[in-house]
Amino acid sequence: MKKIEAIIRKSKFKAVKGALREGGINSFNYHLTRCISEESEKRFYRGVEFDAKSEDRIQLSLYVKDKDVESTIQMIRTSGATGDAADSYLAVFAAKKAYKLEGGENDDKLIEII
Amino acid sequence: MKKIEAIIRKSKFKAVKGALREGGINSFNYHLTRCISEESEKRFYRGVEFDAKSEDRIQLSLYVKDKDVESTIQMIRTSGATGDAADSYLAVFAAKKAYKLEGGENDDKLIEII
Amino acid sequence: MKKIEAIIRKSKFKAVKGALREGGINSFNYHLTRCISEESEKRFYRGVEFDAKSEDRIQLSLYVKDKDVESTIQMIRTSGATGDAADSYLAVFAAKKAYKLEGGENDDKLIEII
Repeated sequence: MKKIEAIIRKSKFKAVKGALREGGINSFNYHLTRCISEESEKRFYRGVEFDAKSEDRIQLSLYVKDKDVESTIQMIRTSGATGDAADSYLAVFAAKKAYKLEGGENDDKLIEII
Repeated sequence: MKKIEAIIRKSKFKAVKGALREGGINSFNYHLTRCISEESEKRFYRGVEFDAKSEDRIQLSLYVKDKDVESTIQMIRTSGATGDAADSYLAVFAAKKAYKLEGGENDDKLIEII
Repeated sequence: MKKIEAIIRKSKFKAVKGALREGGINSFNYHLTRCISEESEKRFYRGVEFDAKSEDRIQLSLYVKDKDVESTIQMIRTSGATGDAADSYLAVFAAKKAYKLEGGENDDKLIEII
């Protein structure tokens, strides 16, 4: 079980979500994050350099099986990249354990995901 | 030192917080996250199937000692599960290092947590 | 490649950001998180103990090269600590893989960061 964290532009969220669904990844969660980057300090608007300081991004968190890591990376990559440097990041972490909490108090449905 | 990430329903937050406190886990942090899941696409309201697309969830992050991982999982499990599939998730990650930053600039209170 | 997660007080964000920039760390992301801690339950205001329950904090996420982990920890530590107990935390995680997604659909700019 791996966790993939991807930080993408808001404008790419719909495309990434669609690419993941098409690729069979129907379950993930996401939240807004602010991104400070070297590049974002030097953006231009109508020819004027301005100090963007920070920008909204969306951070996706996906728990995927080991065998699905490479294909999921490719889905996010082809749908989420804009061609700009420093636009999007992606990192993979190994979970020691992962569970779905399906059961109630008195049953045994702590399902281990491998 | 392990990090436990748990994604639970908002309606279960109070119960989980209470269970953790009762179990001696008095310190954690949390933020709102949006959850897209296969199951959430097929929810029914008054007999009508509708496309929920995504739902608010709460992500808890707990830094716990290795010896407390199993008991903490059980606390979250029994208090956080609703019986619905795909409601809640829980994953455990190994921290390479963990510190409390208690000191100021000129002292030595970078306390390593093991 | 390591991920550093740091949870700091909002009042220290500007100082930490400045310290990181001065130290050559120009790229990171952050989001608001709520922190429940043993200590925050016992805060005093004008001599009256009150139950703070939870407080806003900022969680920074930094992807740094292995060689930069120790210096980055020190930057956050000296700029982010307030001297209060349980104010700030910092944990280091090993990424299995990390990429910048610079390219578009048809090129090879999935750049691995080590």
